[in-house]
Amino acid sequence: MSTSYNGNIKFTVFGQSHAPEIGVTIEGLPLGFEPDFDELNTFLQRRAPGRSGIGTTRNEADIPEFSELTDGKITAIIRNTDIRPEDYSELKFKPRPGHADYTAYVKYGSIPSGGGQFSGRMTAPLCIVGGLCLQILKAQGITVISRIAELGGICDEGELYSSTADNAFPVVDSVCGEKMRSAILSAKACGDSLGGVIECKILGVPAGVGNKMFGGMESRISSLVFAVPAVKGIEFGAGFEAARMRGSENNDAFYAENGKIYTKTNNCGGILGGITDGMPIVFRAAIKPTPSIALEQDTVDLRTGENCKLRVSGRHDACIVPRAVPCIEAAAAIAVLDALMEK
Amino acid sequence: MSTSYNGNIKFTVFGQSHAPEIGVTIEGLPLGFEPDFDELNTFLQRRAPGRSGIGTTRNEADIPEFSELTDGKITAIIRNTDIRPEDYSELKFKPRPGHADYTAYVKYGSIPSGGGQFSGRMTAPLCIVGGLCLQILKAQGITVISRIAELGGICDEGELYSSTADNAFPVVDSVCGEKMRSAILSAKACGDSLGGVIECKILGVPAGVGNKMFGGMESRISSLVFAVPAVKGIEFGAGFEAARMRGSENNDAFYAENGKIYTKTNNCGGILGGITDGMPIVFRAAIKPTPSIALEQDTVDLRTGENCKLRVSGRHDACIVPRAVPCIEAAAAIAVLDALMEK
Amino acid sequence: MSTSYNGNIKFTVFGQSHAPEIGVTIEGLPLGFEPDFDELNTFLQRRAPGRSGIGTTRNEADIPEFSELTDGKITAIIRNTDIRPEDYSELKFKPRPGHADYTAYVKYGSIPSGGGQFSGRMTAPLCIVGGLCLQILKAQGITVISRIAELGGICDEGELYSSTADNAFPVVDSVCGEKMRSAILSAKACGDSLGGVIECKILGVPAGVGNKMFGGMESRISSLVFAVPAVKGIEFGAGFEAARMRGSENNDAFYAENGKIYTKTNNCGGILGGITDGMPIVFRAAIKPTPSIALEQDTVDLRTGENCKLRVSGRHDACIVPRAVPCIEAAAAIAVLDALMEK
Amino acid sequence: MSTSYNGNIKFTVFGQSHAPEIGVTIEGLPLGFEPDFDELNTFLQRRAPGRSGIGTTRNEADIPEFSELTDGKITAIIRNTDIRPEDYSELKFKPRPGHADYTAYVKYGSIPSGGGQFSGRMTAPLCIVGGLCLQILKAQGITVISRIAELGGICDEGELYSSTADNAFPVVDSVCGEKMRSAILSAKACGDSLGGVIECKILGVPAGVGNKMFGGMESRISSLVFAVPAVKGIEFGAGFEAARMRGSENNDAFYAENGKIYTKTNNCGGILGGITDGMPIVFRAAIKPTPSIALEQDTVDLRTGENCKLRVSGRHDACIVPRAVPCIEAAAAIAVLDALMEK
Repeated sequence: MSTSYNGNIKFTVFGQSHAPEIGVTIEGLPLGFEPDFDELNTFLQRRAPGRSGIGTTRNEADIPEFSELTDGKITAIIRNTDIRPEDYSELKFKPRPGHADYTAYVKYGSIPSGGGQFSGRMTAPLCIVGGLCLQILKAQGITVISRIAELGGICDEGELYSSTADNAFPVVDSVCGEKMRSAILSAKACGDSLGGVIECKILGVPAGVGNKMFGGMESRISSLVFAVPAVKGIEFGAGFEAARMRGSENNDAFYAENGKIYTKTNNCGGILGGITDGMPIVFRAAIKPTPSIALEQDTVDLRTGENCKLRVSGRHDACIVPRAVPCIEAAAAIAVLDALMEK
Repeated sequence: MSTSYNGNIKFTVFGQSHAPEIGVTIEGLPLGFEPDFDELNTFLQRRAPGRSGIGTTRNEADIPEFSELTDGKITAIIRNTDIRPEDYSELKFKPRPGHADYTAYVKYGSIPSGGGQFSGRMTAPLCIVGGLCLQILKAQGITVISRIAELGGICDEGELYSSTADNAFPVVDSVCGEKMRSAILSAKACGDSLGGVIECKILGVPAGVGNKMFGGMESRISSLVFAVPAVKGIEFGAGFEAARMRGSENNDAFYAENGKIYTKTNNCGGILGGITDGMPIVFRAAIKPTPSIALEQDTVDLRTGENCKLRVSGRHDACIVPRAVPCIEAAAAIAVLDALMEK
Repeated sequence: MSTSYNGNIKFTVFGQSHAPEIGVTIEGLPLGFEPDFDELNTFLQRRAPGRSGIGTTRNEADIPEFSELTDGKITAIIRNTDIRPEDYSELKFKPRPGHADYTAYVKYGSIPSGGGQFSGRMTAPLCIVGGLCLQILKAQGITVISRIAELGGICDEGELYSSTADNAFPVVDSVCGEKMRSAILSAKACGDSLGGVIECKILGVPAGVGNKMFGGMESRISSLVFAVPAVKGIEFGAGFEAARMRGSENNDAFYAENGKIYTKTNNCGGILGGITDGMPIVFRAAIKPTPSIALEQDTVDLRTGENCKLRVSGRHDACIVPRAVPCIEAAAAIAVLDALMEK
Repeated sequence: MSTSYNGNIKFTVFGQSHAPEIGVTIEGLPLGFEPDFDELNTFLQRRAPGRSGIGTTRNEADIPEFSELTDGKITAIIRNTDIRPEDYSELKFKPRPGHADYTAYVKYGSIPSGGGQFSGRMTAPLCIVGGLCLQILKAQGITVISRIAELGGICDEGELYSSTADNAFPVVDSVCGEKMRSAILSAKACGDSLGGVIECKILGVPAGVGNKMFGGMESRISSLVFAVPAVKGIEFGAGFEAARMRGSENNDAFYAENGKIYTKTNNCGGILGGITDGMPIVFRAAIKPTPSIALEQDTVDLRTGENCKLRVSGRHDACIVPRAVPCIEAAAAIAVLDALMEK
């Protein structure tokens, strides 16, 4: 548990934000799978800092070195090169509101520098695993696409049909994307931050994947998606809206066409009884605003127990939602491949 | 996986809706724990049919027999007494929209009678485990409380401070409860059904429970809550609303009082970095409307592949939300006790 | 852990020797597998008391009832009918040497009646699982055969080529078997007991099953075989003899014949680097003599802490080795099928 | 499974014999544990090549670098510096008898260079984990000691009471040790190799550790000990000898002294019903002779399917038993600490 995922695919994340390296060792990938490292690096660049021109100025190449490539087992190591622990000296005893500083302190006895294993930087190893899973899924005709559905009160318009990976900003409608980008810059200018909602669709999954009870696709996907820091909610298909519908509205009627069975709507998000029905898996994840903000906040000095003020310096994204998009895809890809391997 | 939960607490659910019995065998409970069976039966009665006067007419005593009580291991068996498989004859080949019939058929080759292990009836064993966990938690000063927060467009008013277990309808404001009950009866009269949102709070959990990444409390709770059939969304603290806030609004400021540390707000739902911060754990779960409705629906006859119509008879709840309340408490209690046992 | 096995096949044993029932719930069997219950009962009868005419007089039909038969999941319950807890009254505070009474007392606070879950009776559920696995293996051309290789100083002569299941006494050479049977009766007449060595071969396993390190066939088989009470040693192929050979003697030379690769000898017991090489898997398990004997023994009264004497009455086998033979086959079958499911 | 151990302590081994590095990431060590790295390196040197003056000439410093030291999580990396893959060119298609070459080829499609993850070199990460566990156990008053009990037909004399770690050759009686060393040199001179038997005792384990059935100490220890390459047998206490005793001989009588309970003999090896009884845990492991020998052997050329001859060059130990001693201690330490953490 904690830094290990132990399904049909197994992996363990190691290292920390301010340690010499972070990495991951993966086991249980299909024998014979040969990774396309260029494609993987392209995927990882979507998560890497600096891409959208509005994120952290921490500069990490984030190019993993791979030291095993046989037997369905891969180990990848990313050297941390641009560490500035001095940014964090005041933070050693003053927990940042909204961050894991205080809970890490209670659990482990100290606040880890740079967030330690709680840092968003730890999603890089997750994206390595997810990026490899995406390649395996693609070979089976399965694709994972996503977009920012909502950010700073602005909703992306249009339906999500294809990947937004090549867009400068991961939305369907670039006009909405521009508005979101402005909202981020405006929040940043105030020393503040924004959150958002990411929508993710998994296309091409056959019916019959997943299982009842604790093996259901919602359980599998949600437990991985909540491992991405800052996710505070998830809903499948119509989700919370389904709770407001009548059964006659929410039920997805079946129909047959050319010998195949479909549903007319997809309020269930492609999952019935925990098992896929052959329609796209659809979910949305709520991402809270970055907790590290420049504005003054109230906190407690853990040395003295006194109330005090805090201004967080350091190089933080005013909105991590754009960089979280590939992380959510990675989490989804792992969950789906893991379930597929059970068939 | 699937019918087994394999944490620090381990349990396996067995049996089916229309089999002679359903049951559960549990391992890993604290040595020396002596269950209070009266209290457990009181808890189980909250899930049992017929309590609110508006549910299914299937009449099951649902009194488990316990055959092991030592070594932290317990096996409980509930005899199924009021089975009417004949209600399901037409359903053998016509999958009910919104139900697991079709996906079970794809996965297992046939539609299980009465929903088989997909039936809501399988939450009875879950409630046995959860009811025992609740007793163990209570001895540690931890209580799990919940209520219907929203049903048929009606929101429960007031704050959730204490258990609604003794209320005829599990809400804080009984006037709202009456409206919800009317809404259910009205949907039922139309042959239709309703869903709703359940809010759950876990009080008294110390700071420092849970872990980072895959061991986070959101991952643990969500994977168990989604094992309750009909749950389609979950959010912690401010949840999807947090995605619409700025960091300065969403961050929960820390303050010290009498040597203890608290947060002024609880938008994080008591969880930061996957670890509890000592404030109440708060989450909401979206429950879809019961898929089995009397209204005519479109489906496919799996023998012929032809489109056809279906009316579901059988004894179904027009709204399972009231009976789902203890199930959500059970899932939450299991997740919290399991995490506590790791300390 | 403990009463659950959690591999690709998962099962949990429940009940106790002197409880109303014992049983097992199994998950993860291949979909579509249809058990042959007559064949299973024939297998279970090999373990059941009374068969060889020399075992315990406890009379249990040991016919399981099966309550689930779908989805690769099966639950089996055996009612305990011939319980005599009164045989155990003196044993409540005087631990029997060689038995788990004392260690159970330290761990759980009391000596369980009739051995509780430490009783050899708990191998009945193990044999149910193993008996089902044997049927699945047989359909893939894999058979598990075994025999008593040594008992009371008498070695079985001849090579083990085929099943001894139909023999009154599970040996290759019936003359040796008669001598073993006499040795048991003679030990019994003295109020004493005997142990022995069981040899097991698994034929037809293809090369390439199992894995390196913690996934090796020796690790998998041994961890299941040691779950059979009274097993105190296991060796694969030449085993302890291999430790006395030179490399040039112990190495099994490869040769090709008709396009297939074989080894000239099988000192490695069909396993190299934890993975099968296509030759028979061969192992031997050492079974200690039954600890419950009629002869007076030294023990301690746990109430007073005083040294005292003990004579064990009750209905115990003077030698459980014949009844352990199918248990060892069951353990081996589970391990091999579990590893095969990983391919 | 395979390269991950997933108990209360969790660890994953990565890298290969001829890769740039090998390593291990460990999770679940007790919070607050501070490793003594000097002591760990001293332990690792017992496994490292060259110590006894009779092993491989491969020269690896084997000093791990540690990159995480918080939260009960540690990652260690050993750079491989003295690789000579050219020694293995002929071996790419001619599997060495007694080695995992052929089975790896069947499973993974090629013979891994230098044994890959099947190499004895992979026991270095196991010893890192075990060495840390030994430190944690020592702080609880538990020590693991062992010796070569038998090698090349020569038995070590005397009882094993204390650690042999400081002895040039890990035996109790140095005269016997000298004879063993001569036997190894003599086998080496013939281009041959030797195996042996290692005896291991774990002192100071309290009664009540371990569990029944699949959680028994024999299952836990054996599954880890068989992960050490070349182990082909294990026996606890009297082991295979117990199979030749009568119950009255084998049973270990209990007696009380100064308010504590002991057994007069220890034929059960400190384990009854899978649970420790407070006496030393005692087991012996059979190590087969090194399969890589200089003498000509028969094998098959996998390219042509033709029978052929093979002489293994490369730098191999003529007897790995001395270097296996700390590996067995490491495996035992992990199993015992893992079981202790369950209490």
